[in-house]
Amino acid sequence: MRIIGIDPGSRATGFGVVERREGRVHHIAHGVLRPPGGAALSDRLAHLYAELRAVVERERPEVAVVEQVFMAANARSALVLGQARGTALAALGADSLPVFELAPRAIKNAVVGTGAASKVQVQRMVARLLSLDSPPPTDAADALAAAICQAHVGRLAGMSAPGRRRRAQRWTPEVLR
Amino acid sequence: MRIIGIDPGSRATGFGVVERREGRVHHIAHGVLRPPGGAALSDRLAHLYAELRAVVERERPEVAVVEQVFMAANARSALVLGQARGTALAALGADSLPVFELAPRAIKNAVVGTGAASKVQVQRMVARLLSLDSPPPTDAADALAAAICQAHVGRLAGMSAPGRRRRAQRWTPEVLR
Repeated sequence: MRIIGIDPGSRATGFGVVERREGRVHHIAHGVLRPPGGAALSDRLAHLYAELRAVVERERPEVAVVEQVFMAANARSALVLGQARGTALAALGADSLPVFELAPRAIKNAVVGTGAASKVQVQRMVARLLSLDSPPPTDAADALAAAICQAHVGRLAGMSAPGRRRRAQRWTPEVLR
Repeated sequence: MRIIGIDPGSRATGFGVVERREGRVHHIAHGVLRPPGGAALSDRLAHLYAELRAVVERERPEVAVVEQVFMAANARSALVLGQARGTALAALGADSLPVFELAPRAIKNAVVGTGAASKVQVQRMVARLLSLDSPPPTDAADALAAAICQAHVGRLAGMSAPGRRRRAQRWTPEVLR
């Protein structure tokens, strides 16, 4: 099972691809997509769309995951974030990938062990869990963390032991609507 | 000069295409794109992207225009609007169309003669200005109104008489950044 995590933003969109194989999560790729600075908004979003499509075509994930947005600071920043997030979701949807969303606290909890983990803690733990030589940049680390969390959620959701199914269902994220 | 106006929304995105020819604005096409209800968000946005690309390929506008967003009601609705708006802008940017934005009041003023015009007034005046048999649906009417306004703005901006250039520049919208 190959999973792509996405951390969309107006200036930078992080992505991280992992694979769950024999009960372990392996690193495949990560990176940060940065639309050309100074370009018009529509050109920047078109650039993000094209680059993300290229990543999906190259890495061939079967599932995608993004962080839930609970509350943006204000309506202006929510609009700006929404524009990048919508573009990224449209790019993922073009390949009919199922896109799940996970709460930020659930992601931090799965990776660091506490929902209140700092960015630096997430970077370090992602590097350790995936045996990377150095911590990935923050946007990519958040995307990898989401993918790692989804790998565990997917494993729980796929378990067939009846006693654990109920617990697994609690964890199963809804496809974004 | 062929202009496409867009009125993006999470449930429906209106579009309207007009052409400025010999000092007059002519109707070319309009419609409302509705992603399939009940589908996942990423699928709905992918659908919007694909449909808008198809409209642009069919109608071949040289310029696009969207309403400025001044203030959404709250951060949640701004995020939802932003997701549709970003997707639409990415679709327009894919063809390297210059995308302008105009204030809602400027659009209503250009079409109805008052910045405080109602939706129904915009529908009626759009139908009259473009010699349509019946008022277009609201989302399409707003998109056509934006395109009509941009047609006038572009005409003013293109004027070469030095005395009017200053006035024209006041009107020239900035490309979205």
